[in-house]
Amino acid sequence: MAQTNGKNGSGNGFKVLGTRPIRHDGIDKVTGHANYGADLSLPGMLHAKFLRSPHAHARILSVDTSKAEAMPGVKAVVTGDDFPPPPTGIAESGETPADYSDLARNVMAQDKALYHGHAIAAVAATTVRQAEEAVKRIIVEYDVLPPVLDVRDAMRDGAPVLHESMRTKGLADAPDRPTNVASYSVYELGDVDAGFAAADVVIEREHTVNTVHQGYIEPHAAVVRSSEDGQVTIWASSQGHFMIRELSAQLLHLDISQIKVIPAEIGGGFGGKTTVYLEPVGILLSRKADRPVKLVMTREEVFRGSGPAPASYIRCKLGATRDGRLTAGYAYMAYEAGAFPGSAVGAGMMGIFAPYDLPNLRIEGYDVCVNKPKSAAYRAPGAPNASFSAETILEEIAEKLRVDSLDIRLRNAAVEGVVNATGVAWPRIGLQETLEAAREHSHYSAPLGPNQGRGVAAGWWMNAGGLSSATLQINEDGTASVAEGSPDIGGTRAVMAMIVSEELGIPVDKVRPLVADTESVAYTGVTGGSRVAYATGWAVTNACRDAIRQMRECAARVWEVDAERVEWSDGKAILSGDGKELTLKEIVAEAHATGGMITSASSINAPGAAAAFGTHVADVEVDPETGRVLVTRYTVCQDAGKALHPSYVEGQMQGGAAQGIGWAINEEYVFDADGVMENAGFLDYRMPVALDLPMIDTVIVEVPNPRHPYGVRGVGEVPIVPPIAAIANAIYAAAGVRMTACPMSPPRVLAALKKQARSPQAAAG
Amino acid sequence: MAQTNGKNGSGNGFKVLGTRPIRHDGIDKVTGHANYGADLSLPGMLHAKFLRSPHAHARILSVDTSKAEAMPGVKAVVTGDDFPPPPTGIAESGETPADYSDLARNVMAQDKALYHGHAIAAVAATTVRQAEEAVKRIIVEYDVLPPVLDVRDAMRDGAPVLHESMRTKGLADAPDRPTNVASYSVYELGDVDAGFAAADVVIEREHTVNTVHQGYIEPHAAVVRSSEDGQVTIWASSQGHFMIRELSAQLLHLDISQIKVIPAEIGGGFGGKTTVYLEPVGILLSRKADRPVKLVMTREEVFRGSGPAPASYIRCKLGATRDGRLTAGYAYMAYEAGAFPGSAVGAGMMGIFAPYDLPNLRIEGYDVCVNKPKSAAYRAPGAPNASFSAETILEEIAEKLRVDSLDIRLRNAAVEGVVNATGVAWPRIGLQETLEAAREHSHYSAPLGPNQGRGVAAGWWMNAGGLSSATLQINEDGTASVAEGSPDIGGTRAVMAMIVSEELGIPVDKVRPLVADTESVAYTGVTGGSRVAYATGWAVTNACRDAIRQMRECAARVWEVDAERVEWSDGKAILSGDGKELTLKEIVAEAHATGGMITSASSINAPGAAAAFGTHVADVEVDPETGRVLVTRYTVCQDAGKALHPSYVEGQMQGGAAQGIGWAINEEYVFDADGVMENAGFLDYRMPVALDLPMIDTVIVEVPNPRHPYGVRGVGEVPIVPPIAAIANAIYAAAGVRMTACPMSPPRVLAALKKQARSPQAAAG
Repeated sequence: MAQTNGKNGSGNGFKVLGTRPIRHDGIDKVTGHANYGADLSLPGMLHAKFLRSPHAHARILSVDTSKAEAMPGVKAVVTGDDFPPPPTGIAESGETPADYSDLARNVMAQDKALYHGHAIAAVAATTVRQAEEAVKRIIVEYDVLPPVLDVRDAMRDGAPVLHESMRTKGLADAPDRPTNVASYSVYELGDVDAGFAAADVVIEREHTVNTVHQGYIEPHAAVVRSSEDGQVTIWASSQGHFMIRELSAQLLHLDISQIKVIPAEIGGGFGGKTTVYLEPVGILLSRKADRPVKLVMTREEVFRGSGPAPASYIRCKLGATRDGRLTAGYAYMAYEAGAFPGSAVGAGMMGIFAPYDLPNLRIEGYDVCVNKPKSAAYRAPGAPNASFSAETILEEIAEKLRVDSLDIRLRNAAVEGVVNATGVAWPRIGLQETLEAAREHSHYSAPLGPNQGRGVAAGWWMNAGGLSSATLQINEDGTASVAEGSPDIGGTRAVMAMIVSEELGIPVDKVRPLVADTESVAYTGVTGGSRVAYATGWAVTNACRDAIRQMRECAARVWEVDAERVEWSDGKAILSGDGKELTLKEIVAEAHATGGMITSASSINAPGAAAAFGTHVADVEVDPETGRVLVTRYTVCQDAGKALHPSYVEGQMQGGAAQGIGWAINEEYVFDADGVMENAGFLDYRMPVALDLPMIDTVIVEVPNPRHPYGVRGVGEVPIVPPIAAIANAIYAAAGVRMTACPMSPPRVLAALKKQARSPQAAAG
Repeated sequence: MAQTNGKNGSGNGFKVLGTRPIRHDGIDKVTGHANYGADLSLPGMLHAKFLRSPHAHARILSVDTSKAEAMPGVKAVVTGDDFPPPPTGIAESGETPADYSDLARNVMAQDKALYHGHAIAAVAATTVRQAEEAVKRIIVEYDVLPPVLDVRDAMRDGAPVLHESMRTKGLADAPDRPTNVASYSVYELGDVDAGFAAADVVIEREHTVNTVHQGYIEPHAAVVRSSEDGQVTIWASSQGHFMIRELSAQLLHLDISQIKVIPAEIGGGFGGKTTVYLEPVGILLSRKADRPVKLVMTREEVFRGSGPAPASYIRCKLGATRDGRLTAGYAYMAYEAGAFPGSAVGAGMMGIFAPYDLPNLRIEGYDVCVNKPKSAAYRAPGAPNASFSAETILEEIAEKLRVDSLDIRLRNAAVEGVVNATGVAWPRIGLQETLEAAREHSHYSAPLGPNQGRGVAAGWWMNAGGLSSATLQINEDGTASVAEGSPDIGGTRAVMAMIVSEELGIPVDKVRPLVADTESVAYTGVTGGSRVAYATGWAVTNACRDAIRQMRECAARVWEVDAERVEWSDGKAILSGDGKELTLKEIVAEAHATGGMITSASSINAPGAAAAFGTHVADVEVDPETGRVLVTRYTVCQDAGKALHPSYVEGQMQGGAAQGIGWAINEEYVFDADGVMENAGFLDYRMPVALDLPMIDTVIVEVPNPRHPYGVRGVGEVPIVPPIAAIANAIYAAAGVRMTACPMSPPRVLAALKKQARSPQAAAG
């Protein structure tokens, strides 16, 4: 497969892949017909409401639900006591592994409330209003404890401890006393001390990143029905209905076959819908009430009760020789897991130095519990925090050495064969090509106005593989349907139809893609890790190829020849050495009349997709009077491996950059001293809107992944990694201040500008 | 596979097949949670109502919908003009082939109304009431024509003609002038004249059977949504959602892939839901209104507008030697197709002499149009009418020859190798065994009371094969789901789960069966022709065996041996010559971690299932004063081949007998001279209720079908074939009158009794 390098992404000998057909679910979504999680109503359905902890840290002494149960319309009340003992073991079906016991206690608090908003009980009643009233009548006795709200505070001796039984995993000489540090891990390559000793310039900085939310439009929602025979049906908006099935089954000791999950459309997830909050509670409520139950979070509940991206503290050091060659890197990385372990610090550790050939490095990671909601995945989880540190320090080195920002990155860029932090040599990767694409882009040499500056940053993401499944049906008129198990967030229905079209030679609008329920297709992992086009697409490819095998065999039966002699090309079976042809339609008619329909099922456990890299160029204008940072131009260059549908690849690149920009400049959870979030709504939690952003330009680089049939790498997550650093670097270029705390909001930038005015040499934000 | 012959149906070395687990859909159905065709509501949904012809025969001169369109709430009105030109060709997806053009004109009249109740137009409005009101404002100008309502009248010269262009198909010297006789066909074996010449006794009789309805509880219902991009979703109760998809696509020139049909539960069909009435109209209404549309027939519309079983006139003659050997048979069979061709006379012809070894026969069949609703399939379509003639005449011969009823049947019973009317030799069949089972049953020798009599009759049905598909998913915990395309009428979900359980060694309650929508599984023919357990079960078997192949390969990978060395037994892979074992659960965990999930898809075009036969024994008591016939005891002996779930086989046998008894004694359409049905409701169309019937005893005979993996033959249709004749024979035994018109209702029986009293030698009803 030839490497191409162009915006269109076509070429490579494909007919359909690389083109831009209209998505099959487009009309339904733009006309409002598509059904999301809260759109379903069933006869006799009840509505659920949650009682949530008013304290960020408290022991639950008692929960009295009797008054609530006596309220009009109330059909069921559940508390933590209604949950069976959680199974031991680790759930693998979410985006990151999680302990079942933690999951259970996050879904509903057992003996401690660990964050403000932690679910304590839930009520199902005939109306929403009745449920709300009943929730108020639940009487909880708390022993209020002091909360700990910052990762560094939580690591200090004497800090309030969330989990009495917690000891630090991975720390050889961990003392046998309660701690908030859930785990410690380390990556080491070469000789880091020797590396720094060999450096001509060493820069060390501390960076903090605040808690942010994925900000999906659609709050969590589900309708759950538990039948008298124990069979459960769940309609839910999520990033993985098989994940909901698995976690619900485990938490409630059900067989997998007892739960059917029907995927609703999803109004955004970005990692935040890769675990369960509502569904297990819905099962218990529905079982008690013997009625279907609808559970819908309010926006406020989404902020207070669902998982944000982790805040972090990173101390990072880089050394380089005079000629701009990196010699060593060190990072101390502490991430906030929230109330239960699991902060994505591991991915941050893998990512912090991933773009560079760093022969000597040491990376230490700490996963730390604090009294905030359990953190969840958010687009390249953990990597943006890490990139902020490494990419701004590298920029400082470039400045010191008077090397161009892209040149220093090109000089140190990881390429095939370079060993990364995990001790593995990179396969063929495309970082270099994205750096070159940025250098060639007109943006990089465009003039800047007053108070404007330009920054660049590179970023990495691993891209996941894993289990995906598909079934293919070729209809009696030669059209087809393909059923697969990945909720469609970024246009992957269209991609699956395109793959069928490419493989079978059926026009793409004659292929109907379906996100099937958990009984109609085999297990498929979550829509996350940039894995869908890659792994689910691969399963679809395999299903197509099995169908082609069947069609070749069918043609061979018609021609009375060995199937080996039948070739498949362009939607037709061709008898080699003869020239006879049978179209797909003719074969389907023949199969219909003889052996049966052409149908196939495929499942794959895809290896991790080859890593992908992106290079971003950001221009900002800093208002010296207010500290407001305005992004004036933004360009994303990213290696997609192969862009199956370039429009949706561009959309991912633009969307990731937009979220990264919001994270960089505006977004943050503001907590008061008691751990109460003070801005739990979209008016106060300020995400960028269209007016805040320039058109985000995109350059799709295609360095095919040699392991994948079409060269796909995955595209969704990489683009959120570089923006924080790119903007920080641009702010420095515009205003001369090096920001080290994120978000780089007007008050922080203004403070940095004022500090700089007082002490120009030591400016830092 | 050993032949067994017992009520339980177990044995044969099966572990699960032949047992009686609780059906998986049982709880939902008995608690009222199951969703039927009319249960769905969508936001913004409209309600449709039809304008139906008040004339049984009329030319449509004009349809003015303008006043209806102006009514409040009305969003769309459609008439025959809204349909595109129907495609030429024959639809194969229903239970019997039908011309697309006829289907289109039956769904909505084009230039002629051909029966009272024929759809002329339809309205979609915000409420049902608005739609009803708007329907009344549609102005239709008719040129009213005289109707023809009886098959013999319709065949007479000068009869009103329904279709000007109709010429008799299959009649070599058919005159080139309009006729109501759509087709003529003939079966001939041996020398029928010589056969009758060799007979010592020849009996010839005429029999008529009135129009009856299948009497399903649930009226036809569908919700249809046509999206702006032309994509259609249909939720419907039917016997075949793939049939609905195919017919709707053809009638409206859509691609198969543009239509998705989601099966609702079905409240009975019995053949009456194997074609379309509402769905194509729903698509047009929804397209015009850009809203979902619900279409639900009233009970009256079901009677006036949907397809009943055909009325018929049969003249039949049988000859036999003194020792009770049949020598020849002749039948003239004219069936009412209703408004369009297609009456099931063909199956009647195949069936009339099917139980017997009749070396000389001639059977002539006429398919005749009359001004009644287009006839539809009804459980063994055409066969009960035919059986009524042959089995009562045979009884008369037996009486003449003083041979026992079962003896004469056993003496002439068709067995393997006997050539039937279609010129084909029977494979292994089980008629003889059912006759013997009846003879051995205590019922056959039980004493009778005053005015009581006993009758027997045998009956045949072909049992269909055809296309069926299934996909199998084995879940990560070793449970499974099986998705298949056959609406579950008689408990076939349980059967599919049992097959998975039997093949894979998973407990039956850990297998979840699913009737999947048209996009989630490949094409599957209608639930009809007694084909589901047979053909769909076979597809499920094949899917299981493919999954076993995958699991053997997985075990071979674990053991690093050739897959040939791995055997599958009892839910485990066993390494032959070694004894190592891996359970299904262990293999699934291994597959999960390596190659992907275990999943398979299978489609089969099953050959016609081997024919099945039943022998019924009926006791009746005839009230000499009222002519009322009361069934006092009833026994069904039937060859199921293999009863996979004996309870549901017994249920089919009981249900078929109950319907046959209703047909025999009570049920009939009563038309006035203008062709208006006078009893279009369940109060006046009298079906038997539980109080009318005795417990119907059953004997499952198992003569395995050698072509099927488990020996299945199909059970649903055979049991409706013998009851009319069995009851007629019992009435004769009780009261001495030979009834020749069906139903044998009190007035008819009373008239026959009175006639007998006047002229004892020539009694006939």
